[in-house]
Amino acid sequence: MFANSAGGYPGFGQPAVDPQVQQWFQAVDKDRSGQINWQELQAALINGQGQNFSTTACKLMIGMFDTDKTGTIDINEFQLLYGYINQWLTVFRNYDRDSSGSIEEPELGQAFQQMGFRLSPEFVKFLIARSDMKDHKQMSVDQFIVTCVQIQRFTEAFRAKDTELKGVITLAFEEFLSIAINCSAE
Amino acid sequence: MFANSAGGYPGFGQPAVDPQVQQWFQAVDKDRSGQINWQELQAALINGQGQNFSTTACKLMIGMFDTDKTGTIDINEFQLLYGYINQWLTVFRNYDRDSSGSIEEPELGQAFQQMGFRLSPEFVKFLIARSDMKDHKQMSVDQFIVTCVQIQRFTEAFRAKDTELKGVITLAFEEFLSIAINCSAE
Repeated sequence: MFANSAGGYPGFGQPAVDPQVQQWFQAVDKDRSGQINWQELQAALINGQGQNFSTTACKLMIGMFDTDKTGTIDINEFQLLYGYINQWLTVFRNYDRDSSGSIEEPELGQAFQQMGFRLSPEFVKFLIARSDMKDHKQMSVDQFIVTCVQIQRFTEAFRAKDTELKGVITLAFEEFLSIAINCSAE
Repeated sequence: MFANSAGGYPGFGQPAVDPQVQQWFQAVDKDRSGQINWQELQAALINGQGQNFSTTACKLMIGMFDTDKTGTIDINEFQLLYGYINQWLTVFRNYDRDSSGSIEEPELGQAFQQMGFRLSPEFVKFLIARSDMKDHKQMSVDQFIVTCVQIQRFTEAFRAKDTELKGVITLAFEEFLSIAINCSAE
């Protein structure tokens, strides 16, 4: 049944699907459509505080791997997403020392650093304050994922403009607007 | 019962609440808590395609008037939101000639212009393509509201940096990142 037990030529066609990913996919795909939408993903993902992942996080993750722009992902796209989520979770768990499902600073700064982002302590504070409307103290795993994806996109957009590696970019209004809107989570 | 029939000194204390706003507030406030959250707002607002307003639009609108950061708005904050929504709707309906609940270009460009945004035809195309994943042809009223709020925020951020009115701004990476994340819809 699994693509990787069907023989054929390695390196050709669709990538082989890991049996564990196959199991996950079937559990998430509640309506057995062979496709997962953001609602199914949201129903399956719980953050450490016992809440489902945010709508923003789920739409963002589907959108990242929905290469054919159908609003859903198939099992091959899901395998890529699964690997991506696990990469984030591994970093996150590493710094969530009390397994509370959220990270406080300065651990959050270290987690970002491990993800390849060098951010000042002030900026990490700003990100936490923005995520934790109530206490300004911590960031949950789904917020961590959304934040990493946003930073990643803005970093790429910045680098594309900073061709001389000056660390500063100059933007006209519509340029600024299109980058900002394009990289937004929604 | 209404604040504006209670006498008192005009110009002092809370603004008077319009009887129509009062009626609307009571209809939207399903749990009679005296506060409206984004879920109640979403249940009350239908766009022209018969769909509820997006989660992004509803959270954004609550957030704009939730001055005490409780995640909900009271009747005075609702009155401000109500006026704001009606301002957008008036512009939108003016250009939605067939009352379809969505605008196509070039009318969308004219609607933005009436809102005070001067955007090139190419940029209007980009915004439509981003909103209408399927056909790249039209924008619904809730997407219009989200887009206007985003453009407004980015315009203010741009102007704050463009102190010499050069039409271009120079940003270091974290400056760029904080403006972009701060102005995002979520």
